[in-house]
Amino acid sequence: MQSFIYRTPTRLYFGKGQLGHLSEELAKYGKKVLLTYGGGSIKKIGLYDRVYELLDGFEIYELPGIQPNPKYDPSVLDGVKICKEKNIDVILAVGGGSVLDCSKAIAGGAKYDGDPWDLITYKAETKAALPIVDIITLAATGSEYDAGGVISRTETNDKTSYSSPYLYPAASFLDPTLTFTVSKKQTAAGCADAMNHIMEQYFCDDSTLLNDGFMEAGLRSLMVNGKKCLENPEDYTARAEMMLTCTYGCNGIYSLGNSESYWPLHGMEHALSAYYDITHGEGLAIITPRWMEYVLSDKTVDRFVKYGVNVFGIDSKLDKFEIAKKAIKETYDFFVSMGIPMTLREVGIDEKRLDEMAHHVAINEGLENAWVPLNEADIKKIFENSL
Amino acid sequence: MQSFIYRTPTRLYFGKGQLGHLSEELAKYGKKVLLTYGGGSIKKIGLYDRVYELLDGFEIYELPGIQPNPKYDPSVLDGVKICKEKNIDVILAVGGGSVLDCSKAIAGGAKYDGDPWDLITYKAETKAALPIVDIITLAATGSEYDAGGVISRTETNDKTSYSSPYLYPAASFLDPTLTFTVSKKQTAAGCADAMNHIMEQYFCDDSTLLNDGFMEAGLRSLMVNGKKCLENPEDYTARAEMMLTCTYGCNGIYSLGNSESYWPLHGMEHALSAYYDITHGEGLAIITPRWMEYVLSDKTVDRFVKYGVNVFGIDSKLDKFEIAKKAIKETYDFFVSMGIPMTLREVGIDEKRLDEMAHHVAINEGLENAWVPLNEADIKKIFENSL
Repeated sequence: MQSFIYRTPTRLYFGKGQLGHLSEELAKYGKKVLLTYGGGSIKKIGLYDRVYELLDGFEIYELPGIQPNPKYDPSVLDGVKICKEKNIDVILAVGGGSVLDCSKAIAGGAKYDGDPWDLITYKAETKAALPIVDIITLAATGSEYDAGGVISRTETNDKTSYSSPYLYPAASFLDPTLTFTVSKKQTAAGCADAMNHIMEQYFCDDSTLLNDGFMEAGLRSLMVNGKKCLENPEDYTARAEMMLTCTYGCNGIYSLGNSESYWPLHGMEHALSAYYDITHGEGLAIITPRWMEYVLSDKTVDRFVKYGVNVFGIDSKLDKFEIAKKAIKETYDFFVSMGIPMTLREVGIDEKRLDEMAHHVAINEGLENAWVPLNEADIKKIFENSL
Repeated sequence: MQSFIYRTPTRLYFGKGQLGHLSEELAKYGKKVLLTYGGGSIKKIGLYDRVYELLDGFEIYELPGIQPNPKYDPSVLDGVKICKEKNIDVILAVGGGSVLDCSKAIAGGAKYDGDPWDLITYKAETKAALPIVDIITLAATGSEYDAGGVISRTETNDKTSYSSPYLYPAASFLDPTLTFTVSKKQTAAGCADAMNHIMEQYFCDDSTLLNDGFMEAGLRSLMVNGKKCLENPEDYTARAEMMLTCTYGCNGIYSLGNSESYWPLHGMEHALSAYYDITHGEGLAIITPRWMEYVLSDKTVDRFVKYGVNVFGIDSKLDKFEIAKKAIKETYDFFVSMGIPMTLREVGIDEKRLDEMAHHVAINEGLENAWVPLNEADIKKIFENSL
């Protein structure tokens, strides 16, 4: 078991009706609020108007139009500018993980004198950030309970993970009813994203009985509840359990004391969505079973056996490799059953830029340190197998 | 799924060597430290000297002699007095859960003008507390990661749970090597205590796939690692996993969104250890299988089936009541295998005060609201069955 230092100070307000606490929570930080959001779905579901009703008496500025795979330019830069010009006290991010990730970069940039890209790329240390409160409308990233985010820079095809202890949201509002209107496509992609967050931590050399059981339960919960959410989008219990399971995804609690795994699937997928702006969860789902097949070996098979037996209930008396292969097929079949396009071609990616992407991953993502080390040739092969 | 508001701000320093961060952590709060500890075992293992070495330059005052089932008088009162007279900045609790529980009551009392008992009994609201840092030397209570404690008042046989959001430790140091010298008796009792914390949350009407899996893994982890700790007290991995599994016990993370269970076993055991000052974990172990037998019914059997199949691997094809009864027997047998005395008589309790204790529990613990409601007659019967 590995040593660690762990702290997640975020306050979770979970359940329908919790938005009633929004103004009391924001008032802790001040009156000047930067409201950040995406393409307008929060207006369609009435949440935008509801936030304004709840924040009567606050001074609200807006940064709309934050895109999926949120962009440094213009979103982060525009947000930082508003914060500095208007002396914003607190950022209220309303939307999915992209809006919140972008808001974290803004929160750091607002308290920094130089180019915020310095912080995102760790050329400068983040020493302060504006407080962030969020209302999450999509169960997926877990950004609402962690200290990081992913920011894309279009001109360089960079998609960079940025984290700092200052970036934990002060409070996250999780109302499962706000996810009732999430499309089947986004529900499935969110489920795949959250499953991947767990798998990235599960497949490692050194885990514990406690963490394994917690993560296996997380995977089962996501699969059972993800299906239920597609069948009946207004199933409160299913939306709620999916939301909470996602929330734990990236803050470390699933794997405290485990050895580092270096998140190979995210490393590879970041290139796919940086170069092609595809839906992150779909990119992950596509490469996951191909990565599994590629890294399955005498050295790794026992971990896949545990995964197969405990997550899918495969008969533990079968041959080890048979269990492992069944588990990989079950993983693939589950994504298919969720309606996820399971080849890169289906999401618009062909062989043209595979070399370039594999090179980008190999030099930027440190996957030579991963659970199963991956070099540029390995990465390219996994991409090819995913076509 | 139930709504909830959740936040645990404590920083965990977990693993051997983490004590190197002690002075930097304490320095955040000031230079005047109240060092609280118990009967001197921290001197035997060299931890007392090590703390003084690490805190060179701090102004240290001491409150030694805190007993198991920590006492309001003299410990809490003496501690509050020192804090007020010496203007203490931070409390450093070194020991097991009792030392930390006592320190929490001191931390609240130090910031209150009246009788600290008002806070403990909620006659007055806790509105502030001194910061607390702890070094835990016993894997059991989870006090290092929650906002509560239990305080005993000898003259009235009261054993009262006291909690407030101000009582989360600022930081908890968990070094598994510090538990290497814990006796077999205390190791077993700590294991039983931690198992009970999970069971109190597991046996409820409304849980989730995620929480069930997490708690079942917690129980399996405690049983497997508890045994290993008895067999080889210096098994770092076993001590470490047991320590972390215990840490989650009482801060809610095992059961976020579950329905309230009202902790019937703790409610009943608090009377046993208030009247007879027995070891808390032993008291819990003794009454647990008797409570299980008593509440098993058509209404509750499915929950026991889940417990039996997922925690003990009992064949799910057997008759429901057969599975439930096997699970209860497995629970009993596990405690026996840990060397725990499994009757009240063995720990010095006979029938004399059962009426009195049952009455005390019935009027103080709210067990008419428990998962299976218990009245005074029920409580007495469970005590009798435990003789």
